[in-house]
Amino acid sequence: MPVNPNAAIEITAFRWVPEFAQGVVRDLRARWALEEAGLDYRVRLLGQERPLDYLREQPFDQVPCFNDGEVQIFESGAIVQYIGSKSETLLPVEPRERYRAIQWTYAALNSVEPAILNLLLIDIFYKGEQWATLRRPGAEDFVKLKLKRLSEWLGDKQWLEGDCFSVGDLVMVTVLRFLRHTDLVAQFPNLDAYQKRGEGRPAFQRALADQLAVYAENQPQPEPEGAAA
Amino acid sequence: MPVNPNAAIEITAFRWVPEFAQGVVRDLRARWALEEAGLDYRVRLLGQERPLDYLREQPFDQVPCFNDGEVQIFESGAIVQYIGSKSETLLPVEPRERYRAIQWTYAALNSVEPAILNLLLIDIFYKGEQWATLRRPGAEDFVKLKLKRLSEWLGDKQWLEGDCFSVGDLVMVTVLRFLRHTDLVAQFPNLDAYQKRGEGRPAFQRALADQLAVYAENQPQPEPEGAAA
Repeated sequence: MPVNPNAAIEITAFRWVPEFAQGVVRDLRARWALEEAGLDYRVRLLGQERPLDYLREQPFDQVPCFNDGEVQIFESGAIVQYIGSKSETLLPVEPRERYRAIQWTYAALNSVEPAILNLLLIDIFYKGEQWATLRRPGAEDFVKLKLKRLSEWLGDKQWLEGDCFSVGDLVMVTVLRFLRHTDLVAQFPNLDAYQKRGEGRPAFQRALADQLAVYAENQPQPEPEGAAA
Repeated sequence: MPVNPNAAIEITAFRWVPEFAQGVVRDLRARWALEEAGLDYRVRLLGQERPLDYLREQPFDQVPCFNDGEVQIFESGAIVQYIGSKSETLLPVEPRERYRAIQWTYAALNSVEPAILNLLLIDIFYKGEQWATLRRPGAEDFVKLKLKRLSEWLGDKQWLEGDCFSVGDLVMVTVLRFLRHTDLVAQFPNLDAYQKRGEGRPAFQRALADQLAVYAENQPQPEPEGAAA
């Protein structure tokens, strides 16, 4: 049960987000890594209006930030790598395997995620705008190409580098989750099974439940009837 | 003079690319890091048609790959981090500073580069397409927001974390170079000076010259007159 108000490790997360974002906000990656590593953490919740000095912690105004009293960093990729450095479950010690795992965090975040987030933005934020309608087929094709390359690499392996789960898989699985409003991952059965294998890990399930519990607690109340009158 | 045909370290690079890509292809990051670290390397050149088994080295069909006989990886972010692990010039040893530097490689590649590459694609690959024309103002605004955040973070610091250059600066400077077809960086004088400070490092200058020399040597010859007749 790593969520612990007295823990030395603190991460930031949003108090509440709309439904399309619930279960994919990036503090999920930090929570999942901490669960895999068995490290207790506490959560500092932020509203949609962040304090102005939050930009001095996170210049791009995002979550999560991470602070264990020694290392204070942002960027989920860096955070899971740092957590991985404390847990061989997440990051092998030998350089040959260690940098393969690290490589996959960059691949997930730079070679795969941008194409996927572009499609998500088209489908959610810019839905109905003329450019988005015109661009969507090409944007989807680009996502499919990325998934095809990833599927071919994965083949019948359990994880990206074979039998051992790593931070690379952790980040990649969370990237694939950004496509949950489509059937694109399901078009690649080995990727689909890979994503489900990641999501089936008990540490993931605890991380997801803890993220969603915060949103449930902080669900905005509907205006009372007649309040606007 | 780190380019050395007998070096143990090998990177991959393209034999030739069109002018808009010359000086920004990502082997530049590996070359620059190797120059900063003083490590000799050799270059395996690839044509636009890669051997089919190249996907087993680089599943997304890109450059660079890196191999020093022990560690074989792709993704420029992972490569510069690994090279950094061999050089305190690039990556401090103490975790507090080390993970700040690592964090900036992820920030450059995930929080800044996608917005910038999106604009580059609109301006170069998709120029004249209706969706690109419609989307361009919003895409440019998004780049400006990222640059504003970065500029505010940088303030009057020399490098992202103060006085010491790191792998984080190396990647960020190469990301800003993707905007060289615009005046957007110049609109933020401290970022402009930061980029020029990075590009002014002798190691960068050697890396850039070595990348460009390959393209000059392999410049496609124009078809002889009447060849198509």
